[in-house]
Amino acid sequence: MTKDFTLTVKARDGAARSGAIVTPRGVVRTPAFMPVGTGATVKAMFPEDVDATGADIILANTYHLMLRPGAERIARLGGLHQFMHWDKPILTDSGGFQVMSLAKLRRIDEEGVTFQSHIDGASVALSPERAIEVQCLLGADIQMVLDECTKFPASRDEAATSLDLSLRWAERSKRAFAAAAEPGQALFGIVQGSVYPDLRERSARALSETGFDGYAIGGLAVGEGQAAMLDMVEVTTSFLPQDRPRYLMGVGTPEDLLLSIARGIDMFDCVMPTRSGRHCQAFTWGGRLNLRNARYADDPTPLDPESACPAALYERAYLHHLVKSGETLGAMLLSYANVQFYQELMAGARAAIEAGSFADFSDALRLRYAKASDVPAED
Amino acid sequence: MTKDFTLTVKARDGAARSGAIVTPRGVVRTPAFMPVGTGATVKAMFPEDVDATGADIILANTYHLMLRPGAERIARLGGLHQFMHWDKPILTDSGGFQVMSLAKLRRIDEEGVTFQSHIDGASVALSPERAIEVQCLLGADIQMVLDECTKFPASRDEAATSLDLSLRWAERSKRAFAAAAEPGQALFGIVQGSVYPDLRERSARALSETGFDGYAIGGLAVGEGQAAMLDMVEVTTSFLPQDRPRYLMGVGTPEDLLLSIARGIDMFDCVMPTRSGRHCQAFTWGGRLNLRNARYADDPTPLDPESACPAALYERAYLHHLVKSGETLGAMLLSYANVQFYQELMAGARAAIEAGSFADFSDALRLRYAKASDVPAED
Repeated sequence: MTKDFTLTVKARDGAARSGAIVTPRGVVRTPAFMPVGTGATVKAMFPEDVDATGADIILANTYHLMLRPGAERIARLGGLHQFMHWDKPILTDSGGFQVMSLAKLRRIDEEGVTFQSHIDGASVALSPERAIEVQCLLGADIQMVLDECTKFPASRDEAATSLDLSLRWAERSKRAFAAAAEPGQALFGIVQGSVYPDLRERSARALSETGFDGYAIGGLAVGEGQAAMLDMVEVTTSFLPQDRPRYLMGVGTPEDLLLSIARGIDMFDCVMPTRSGRHCQAFTWGGRLNLRNARYADDPTPLDPESACPAALYERAYLHHLVKSGETLGAMLLSYANVQFYQELMAGARAAIEAGSFADFSDALRLRYAKASDVPAED
Repeated sequence: MTKDFTLTVKARDGAARSGAIVTPRGVVRTPAFMPVGTGATVKAMFPEDVDATGADIILANTYHLMLRPGAERIARLGGLHQFMHWDKPILTDSGGFQVMSLAKLRRIDEEGVTFQSHIDGASVALSPERAIEVQCLLGADIQMVLDECTKFPASRDEAATSLDLSLRWAERSKRAFAAAAEPGQALFGIVQGSVYPDLRERSARALSETGFDGYAIGGLAVGEGQAAMLDMVEVTTSFLPQDRPRYLMGVGTPEDLLLSIARGIDMFDCVMPTRSGRHCQAFTWGGRLNLRNARYADDPTPLDPESACPAALYERAYLHHLVKSGETLGAMLLSYANVQFYQELMAGARAAIEAGSFADFSDALRLRYAKASDVPAED
């Protein structure tokens, strides 16, 4: 839609691909993982450390920011990049997913959705046009169409009805975006269709015909299981244009990412590295660790001897002490190390694709995770 | 007591003095403020950022560390410096103050104190000898004698009895330290005597006669009020040797520090900058700010335009948003900025003493604080 937002695919290895999305605010190397900065902060991390992990782009949540501190306020303060001290690209979602999962008393009709703020109970309306307006006020580099996130499980009829509404909203979003966006900003469509391959095809084809700067796959990782998710990824990517980024929303574990890259996904976002970091869990090259585990109380091993992250140099015994004591530094170090692990995983995937050895890279990491991971902590 | 721990007084301005304590782990410029790292972490700060603020030394709490993760464990892991990634000097308290304020079911006799851990209820004994043993296991550069922290208020008789017990414990501490310490480690005595000038004199004279590497003033900032505190500081310092550091324990506000420096104090520790940082309050060159205050919601001013701290560059509107949203980054940024403000305050005091203008420096800062400070937040 704009000439300044382009994807260059540099290498392919099976269906996996590596490349670069060029935007006015910088290059996003793909496959890319976007740390989640819900409320204008990647939780428990300094922005310069998010940058230092190698993240080229982060995600922020339209729903949260429109409620607090407010999109108009952020615009007055110079936009989201300046507000949160992050000058690389930002992708914002449309707010639709959080309206469904967090807001109370929502009502959906053809026009859009009305809901009660989970913060102060205020009544708020969100339409395709308002979602674009908010994202433009924030100054998001990649914006998402408002869609209805189909509930799971959904019957075929429910999924089809929901999908058709989302397609009409996508058209309206595109018109609103064309009228309001800055040069170089991009708009992604979102493929829905629940777990029905023919609906996924219908959604992907219709969106491709309308034409977007990129295509997201929504409505997955909502309880359908990994096998069904991967099936839907595979069928969907086969109907998407080759020259546009594909973004699998809200996914996932390191294993999920590798298996999805193998099916042609270019972009991911997930709260997992930061949320796990606040819950005593670490992703390392050697597997998942639960630092609350008593086995680490006397362990002088660095968190991840294979990582280049400064936070991964801290010894497991110290991290165990910090998390047992409820010290904030534990969450800070584990969030940092986890986000960097995800970035190193993406860098490893890109290099493996370019070397034609992605399957080996993926198999080796998944085997280590299967063998050497702690049971996740309950808390 | 050791030849490697020395104080050089470089300049005097009235009773205020600036200088340097040379230790094997580095030079401590005085007046010095020690950030508090209770549980082997200066709360919500990376050690490298504590370092970057200009802190030459931090304090850690013997009571907390002996209970969790345990002094013997820290020793096995290479000592406290290695454990917490801090290679500059560390001062540890003796544990006595926390036994009085945090532990349950304590019993004090001539031998020492027995108490129940506030973490798991275990019965723990602390004697002057054990307090030194623990501090040596931690590898503390400056160690404190175990004393009885006289309760406040205390009658003259109670204060005298308590003081005499502390003097006997100080002798035992010195003997234990002489047998166990590494070259260059230092032991400080602690002056008690509540708010009774003659008892403060008796304590200071007796400790000076015994001879310590430095002298702390304890039992203040416990409810006696600023005027009484400053009176006790003044009388006490007049009876302490000129060539040894004087350390006012647990103090305090920026105003307290300046008024105490004017009375000859060289060292301070206090949780105020970090605790305030976790409670939405900032110390700046322009005064105290309460970032929860609605007046900051649209304020694009950096937190402290006069500070060199990277965290002080963040805009007040953003910090307001973070603290209102309960985001960890708010506490991280405010803790960092506050600790750096305290260090910049000490640097300013040292420079003013050397320039012979300390009174002007102190008056100007205290006037700004009186005029421009927000009311402290309740939470």
